[in-house]
Amino acid sequence: MAGSSFGTIFRITTWGESHGKALGVVIDGCPAGLPLDETDIQPFLDRRRPGQSEFSTPRTEEDRVEILSGVFEGKTTGTPISMLVYNRSQRSSDYGELAECYRPGHADYTFDAKYGFRDYRGGGRSSGRETLARVAAGAVAVKLLGQFGIRFLTYTRSIGDITIRDDSFDEEEILRNPLYMPDREAAERAADHIRQMREEHDSVGGCVETVITGLPAGIGDTVFEKLDANLAKALMSIGAVKAVEIGDGVRVGRMTGSAANDGFRMDEDGRVVKSSNHAGGIMGGMSDGSPVILRAVFKPTPSIFKPQHTVTKGREELELTIKGRHDPVIVPRAVVVVEAMAALAIVDALLLNMTATVDGIMKFYRS
Amino acid sequence: MAGSSFGTIFRITTWGESHGKALGVVIDGCPAGLPLDETDIQPFLDRRRPGQSEFSTPRTEEDRVEILSGVFEGKTTGTPISMLVYNRSQRSSDYGELAECYRPGHADYTFDAKYGFRDYRGGGRSSGRETLARVAAGAVAVKLLGQFGIRFLTYTRSIGDITIRDDSFDEEEILRNPLYMPDREAAERAADHIRQMREEHDSVGGCVETVITGLPAGIGDTVFEKLDANLAKALMSIGAVKAVEIGDGVRVGRMTGSAANDGFRMDEDGRVVKSSNHAGGIMGGMSDGSPVILRAVFKPTPSIFKPQHTVTKGREELELTIKGRHDPVIVPRAVVVVEAMAALAIVDALLLNMTATVDGIMKFYRS
Amino acid sequence: MAGSSFGTIFRITTWGESHGKALGVVIDGCPAGLPLDETDIQPFLDRRRPGQSEFSTPRTEEDRVEILSGVFEGKTTGTPISMLVYNRSQRSSDYGELAECYRPGHADYTFDAKYGFRDYRGGGRSSGRETLARVAAGAVAVKLLGQFGIRFLTYTRSIGDITIRDDSFDEEEILRNPLYMPDREAAERAADHIRQMREEHDSVGGCVETVITGLPAGIGDTVFEKLDANLAKALMSIGAVKAVEIGDGVRVGRMTGSAANDGFRMDEDGRVVKSSNHAGGIMGGMSDGSPVILRAVFKPTPSIFKPQHTVTKGREELELTIKGRHDPVIVPRAVVVVEAMAALAIVDALLLNMTATVDGIMKFYRS
Amino acid sequence: MAGSSFGTIFRITTWGESHGKALGVVIDGCPAGLPLDETDIQPFLDRRRPGQSEFSTPRTEEDRVEILSGVFEGKTTGTPISMLVYNRSQRSSDYGELAECYRPGHADYTFDAKYGFRDYRGGGRSSGRETLARVAAGAVAVKLLGQFGIRFLTYTRSIGDITIRDDSFDEEEILRNPLYMPDREAAERAADHIRQMREEHDSVGGCVETVITGLPAGIGDTVFEKLDANLAKALMSIGAVKAVEIGDGVRVGRMTGSAANDGFRMDEDGRVVKSSNHAGGIMGGMSDGSPVILRAVFKPTPSIFKPQHTVTKGREELELTIKGRHDPVIVPRAVVVVEAMAALAIVDALLLNMTATVDGIMKFYRS
Repeated sequence: MAGSSFGTIFRITTWGESHGKALGVVIDGCPAGLPLDETDIQPFLDRRRPGQSEFSTPRTEEDRVEILSGVFEGKTTGTPISMLVYNRSQRSSDYGELAECYRPGHADYTFDAKYGFRDYRGGGRSSGRETLARVAAGAVAVKLLGQFGIRFLTYTRSIGDITIRDDSFDEEEILRNPLYMPDREAAERAADHIRQMREEHDSVGGCVETVITGLPAGIGDTVFEKLDANLAKALMSIGAVKAVEIGDGVRVGRMTGSAANDGFRMDEDGRVVKSSNHAGGIMGGMSDGSPVILRAVFKPTPSIFKPQHTVTKGREELELTIKGRHDPVIVPRAVVVVEAMAALAIVDALLLNMTATVDGIMKFYRS
Repeated sequence: MAGSSFGTIFRITTWGESHGKALGVVIDGCPAGLPLDETDIQPFLDRRRPGQSEFSTPRTEEDRVEILSGVFEGKTTGTPISMLVYNRSQRSSDYGELAECYRPGHADYTFDAKYGFRDYRGGGRSSGRETLARVAAGAVAVKLLGQFGIRFLTYTRSIGDITIRDDSFDEEEILRNPLYMPDREAAERAADHIRQMREEHDSVGGCVETVITGLPAGIGDTVFEKLDANLAKALMSIGAVKAVEIGDGVRVGRMTGSAANDGFRMDEDGRVVKSSNHAGGIMGGMSDGSPVILRAVFKPTPSIFKPQHTVTKGREELELTIKGRHDPVIVPRAVVVVEAMAALAIVDALLLNMTATVDGIMKFYRS
Repeated sequence: MAGSSFGTIFRITTWGESHGKALGVVIDGCPAGLPLDETDIQPFLDRRRPGQSEFSTPRTEEDRVEILSGVFEGKTTGTPISMLVYNRSQRSSDYGELAECYRPGHADYTFDAKYGFRDYRGGGRSSGRETLARVAAGAVAVKLLGQFGIRFLTYTRSIGDITIRDDSFDEEEILRNPLYMPDREAAERAADHIRQMREEHDSVGGCVETVITGLPAGIGDTVFEKLDANLAKALMSIGAVKAVEIGDGVRVGRMTGSAANDGFRMDEDGRVVKSSNHAGGIMGGMSDGSPVILRAVFKPTPSIFKPQHTVTKGREELELTIKGRHDPVIVPRAVVVVEAMAALAIVDALLLNMTATVDGIMKFYRS
Repeated sequence: MAGSSFGTIFRITTWGESHGKALGVVIDGCPAGLPLDETDIQPFLDRRRPGQSEFSTPRTEEDRVEILSGVFEGKTTGTPISMLVYNRSQRSSDYGELAECYRPGHADYTFDAKYGFRDYRGGGRSSGRETLARVAAGAVAVKLLGQFGIRFLTYTRSIGDITIRDDSFDEEEILRNPLYMPDREAAERAADHIRQMREEHDSVGGCVETVITGLPAGIGDTVFEKLDANLAKALMSIGAVKAVEIGDGVRVGRMTGSAANDGFRMDEDGRVVKSSNHAGGIMGGMSDGSPVILRAVFKPTPSIFKPQHTVTKGREELELTIKGRHDPVIVPRAVVVVEAMAALAIVDALLLNMTATVDGIMKFYRS
């Protein structure tokens, strides 16, 4: 099936395998007139690039993005924006021994079950490297949303048992530590924990949080295309995510109505605002004007260096010991992926909202 | 925007407001030849009907479903199946006083922000009553999936702080208690807790779990149309859901790779099976042959009888005390809604999977 | 597959069979705030109703449309508009003898080939009666487009060899003659021709033309979603249509470039206009500000009273003589269907166009 | 809007401008296991390449296609197939003078009306060069359909007033003459006519016909997703097409029912067949087992060398004389484009048809 597209109006289609010639994305439906060049995209790719810290693989993938279409004289033209990153070092040989075996926690077995065979080189299409294309597209979405004052703040909320503390939250700290945690002390403890996991040939999970400000109220739809529903799909479509939360998330299951409801009041500028934000900025599927708060929980890196019991394609059991270079934690490199996917869901909802009322359409066409 | 449809091949479109003339659903793309009549649908509607227990509103909505098209001589014809439930008692007057005021925890404010006005009668389109149409469609999906040996077991996992215990799990118990909990003792404690919340004019949240068995491996797609991504969207599109979990869910954030990975082994029948199911039956976006395990966490009923601070459409603050009949907990009536939405996501993925390989297509057309 | 929906933003889903309980349509994505009630819809249904003239079947189907949702206090709310027409006289018995036999020119054989069986009553889902649902939805589209000054003029251009003459074109005449021809003398000759065909137990084809004015330039897209491509799909999706033309249509195949090109000039109001309109108002897939001109060519009514050679479902050959009441020409009743489908394609393109430029979006959200 | 994709299951997305860095296409949803490499694609591109004959522009664009993803060890993997052609000679300077002026018959004006500006180099996204990406994708569709015995025969039916004669139809002749006409004598007369048009600094239109054999009965859907409706969209989405016909096409408007109906009979192998094929292989929106017959009528090349009256972006009138290299006829190079688009519509319908019946699905999953 055609499963590599996301979005209705601002729609992206990603392509490419971990060890193929290239990976890329086509953005179809980006409005005309957005100033855009590669320097808008590259910093986002750099945030997910391996080799950035001691906790990510030291492969020196350069991941230089190239825009091939849809931009003319420095601005988007309204036509598809095709972007591509060539794979520099394809090193298929490293992965040859895994061609016949189903790695625990990976898509090897399910891929074979569906298609009968697979591009086994580095996970092929199911590699985390596929997210590179999402991030390139997300960078465009973030830039476009920025034109309307919509901003994203995305960071690591927890790694293993170490969670940032609300009273130490320091936005400036996010880009200062390799774990993208807005709490220096938590970041240091998390770093120690990751080092220990690596020594034990194990890995660890965690949680990424994103806070979106500046979104007007009323964005999203009331039934299946709820803003939170599309954000949940966007985040759950990232490999390794096993839970998605909006606002108070799983905690609401233990709360009372009087604690979970957000009252309304008038602010000093005569606008309706909420007195709290347990709902995470979305009510009835539509944005409510407060910050949108999302969390994606990531499982630990499945490629660990401990021996694991598994089977081969030929139906033989074996003890597998994975070699090579694998991050002991997915979370820090996934921060920008979460931001990209959230931005893609938001931009589509913002554009779809323009046709909500006859008055709005009339104003648009008459002015 | 057009936001009332779900699914690509087996696609449903719901319509109707809480206090309009009727609510209904059109299923487009149901395969021909499925035996179907109203008796397949009605039991599902009865599971979500109010007035079933002391914990649900005593309104005697009959909710009789009628099939208007798509079935001929007792079987589906492949054409759209239109189903409808007339609203018997529309009692708009009960809700008149809420027309001007934004209830905390409801979609009143966001609806007005988007559309400028709203059908305020009983929540209009944003009423929980909309799920009736989803459940009718879900009943057809469940029946169709049953033809292929795919089964759903759905129940209340927790209410407030009371969670079912694994060692007391009793499938038979689910339909015996009004809370649909598979653990009699937990159900009794939860009932007490709900009674207490009601006395306090408050409400409580909880969690619904569904376990899907019989799904072959390889269903779902690898990138944006991951089976878990679509299940997450399906569940998050239910009003009041604030978190969705697959398998170990939020717990994976605290786990190590060696604990979270599911090893493979060969079973006695020579099939590849997993030794554990932390992944909840989905790997790399595709089913892995183990049971699919999903959880949706629901917030407490927002309509509580305590005074709440809010504002009117006319921008005046007020203390609101909601009257009328409202369940102190959403969860029990939502059990069948979760099952319906999960079934709708699964059936679409099952049908979409048929075109995965040239060999499969050739076998289909040549036999 | 799900094949009963049309449109992306303003999306309709039709359902129902000729002799089922009812037929209907759900419009999802109609903007909020459009004044609407049944009196906006009924006149459109009346235009396609049989029994209007000596040339249409004298069945007295009343076809009363009912709006079940999506309208509150006289205005659309932005939620799905469900409309339904109950089938009064289902008379299945009339059609019983055709259950086993494949009528030439009908979908009986192809329906059985696809689904293995069919609702044979009056053509089931493939009946012309399905267009009733399209017309109800089209009436809403026409009303919405009217708010923006976009108007449709639709009429019979030809019946058999009789074509309206440009120099006798009289818009007022369209609703005065039962054939909806804007040329009284042509209408009289066509009426004679139809009478003769009926006497000969035969039928005749023809052509419907629609002219759309008031559409701003730039509506539509440049590649697959060209405005003319979607109009062609819309019209070709009407049963019995075998050709679709835009502007000069098939004649352009014999023209020279110097004759077919439309030059540009400035009009007295300082606007860019075309000096001719061979293109029929669409260039490069987008409207050019001139009237959009479309034609749909209809085959003759396939139900004729002459004996025809055919086969049964049981694979036996036979001479079939169809009985009952069938119009000797489809065209007059199809006029409003063409208008409805064109309006549905246009309204979707108009709404989709709102996200074309960053400037337009900014103006929308900042004002 | 996102308008560069075609298809639901087998979905293509094209990108690129005439004078940008490259053009390409992503095929998403191609089944796994199809043997594929560049040599399957290149011959199709060569059929539409300019410089092939005296009637096409002598530009030596090489148009070498490269497959970047979705193929592993010589077979498709089920993941997106990305293909790209770099633009060798971008020569923007040739087109500089047209940047400010609206060429008659082109999309210059409508593009500016929609987006406010355009990539004016060689028509940008609206260039005929965009069809290169469609043809590359179509080559994959044709190859896939060939696995199931579905074949395409596509040729020039007419150029100006010169039409092939049925009794001189010679399939072998198609590839022997530069006009792709299956009638040598007609091809010679058409060649003379084109030479004359060129001398007169004018151009000429024509018609392309495609005949599709081997398609089983029942492919397509009954309402909006009729096979002919999607084929009409596919063909009308090709720039310069102004009419689409199925079977007898526009002629049915003048026919009687007894002449237009196709009777059924049993053939010697006990299969239901039609005695004639006026319907062009499609009845009620579904294939009927006879050859599918389609025609697309093309307008003359709009770039002619005669002076034409037009206006500039700055709203000044002028006499424009186009220079450069332009074919005096579009038709011969469009033959392969028509085949590609028809194949894309057919392959999608074939795949969508697999979920039509419960029996078919059961057979698929149980075998």
